[in-house]
Amino acid sequence: MKITVLGTGGGGRAHTAKLLELGHEVYVGTRDPEATLARTEPDMMGNPPYGQWLAQHPGVTLLPFGEAAAAADELVINGIDGHNARAALAAIADDLVGKVLIDYAVPYIYRHETEHPWPTPWGVMPKLDPCDTDSLAEQIQRALPDTKVVKSFVTQEQTTVVNPKSVGGGDHTMFVAGDHADAKRAATELLKAYGWTDILDLGPLVCARGMEMYAHMHSAIAFGLGQQFGGHFGVKVVR
Amino acid sequence: MKITVLGTGGGGRAHTAKLLELGHEVYVGTRDPEATLARTEPDMMGNPPYGQWLAQHPGVTLLPFGEAAAAADELVINGIDGHNARAALAAIADDLVGKVLIDYAVPYIYRHETEHPWPTPWGVMPKLDPCDTDSLAEQIQRALPDTKVVKSFVTQEQTTVVNPKSVGGGDHTMFVAGDHADAKRAATELLKAYGWTDILDLGPLVCARGMEMYAHMHSAIAFGLGQQFGGHFGVKVVR
Repeated sequence: MKITVLGTGGGGRAHTAKLLELGHEVYVGTRDPEATLARTEPDMMGNPPYGQWLAQHPGVTLLPFGEAAAAADELVINGIDGHNARAALAAIADDLVGKVLIDYAVPYIYRHETEHPWPTPWGVMPKLDPCDTDSLAEQIQRALPDTKVVKSFVTQEQTTVVNPKSVGGGDHTMFVAGDHADAKRAATELLKAYGWTDILDLGPLVCARGMEMYAHMHSAIAFGLGQQFGGHFGVKVVR
Repeated sequence: MKITVLGTGGGGRAHTAKLLELGHEVYVGTRDPEATLARTEPDMMGNPPYGQWLAQHPGVTLLPFGEAAAAADELVINGIDGHNARAALAAIADDLVGKVLIDYAVPYIYRHETEHPWPTPWGVMPKLDPCDTDSLAEQIQRALPDTKVVKSFVTQEQTTVVNPKSVGGGDHTMFVAGDHADAKRAATELLKAYGWTDILDLGPLVCARGMEMYAHMHSAIAFGLGQQFGGHFGVKVVR
């Protein structure tokens, strides 16, 4: 299948590499491909320059956001950071008509754009906006009424999402939420291909509020386990 | 031990009954014992009148909040609802000096006090206040600087907290957070007596933000499982 990943950060790379491994034709969207390829420094999270990473992952087609989205058969994964996702997606709404958009962004607002978001575990916790009475996923769905938004992946590090068996043999839970049953089915099929066996449909997209707000709990668990910068663990719903 | 439970709702009752079963001397605090005992109707959550419940649980001493708090050797469990907890506790600050206060309240703000908080699964989700940049537990700690606040129990229904083995044989995770190591140790000992085997210390009390904000995810999971009004499940950190 032709599947698109929007974003060239660590999460986007994890999905891109996994989709290639699964035999898909992968299109990656970035704001400005030339600028992305021209970078020679690691990004804010310490990922090596994208051009360097791309050289090790042949078969990826790097395109501007809109062209990449339009290239997908059905599935588009949003790997644009939560602070910029809504505006970036709204700008390519036409290219996303009829597509399933799987969103895993957390709407963190960094206090200073130049400040590292986690200088200490809890001293500079990024603020969430929206929060509680709205979610980024719902905002995106309202901005893109002809796209089928599914919130998923967000309760895990993306390196674990694409390789669930790397934690506890894969015996943990992934969640999906959205207002379109067929889109949730498509996301669930992808998750099964990734290796997930326990995929819980939480219901309508409003459940994305809880999924996004779980970010602070996820960070707290990671720090509690002594695993900084994301952590490598799963959460299993025991019932 | 003399242990105090503040609050006569379903959660407070679960802890009270379990503490009695464990052989403790249990003091229960309520705003106005006479009024509590005079009620003849089930409460908002459908619990039978407290007087009726009390008749089935001999050995409990029902007192006004302050007297009940003062009666505890060390441990006081806050079962006052999140909307009223801070003011009620601040009013009895002197009685809580030197005590360990285990708080499991979620700071829900019901839109109308007379409206049932969950008329539909997601239509009237209660709002959280504080949220994201502060937590109820931190507010309580600031209001009671001479009390040692521990946030715990909040990621579970209290009926599961007091009986963890009722779900998956007890193979799930409980969390504690707080700024006082000795208080977290006391809370952890109580949790072990309840039957918990996996108790994760998340760190300082600021982690209560994530624990309280998890409430929406907890509700979403409950509804996803088809378990309304709380649910009966656990969450295990798989690592």
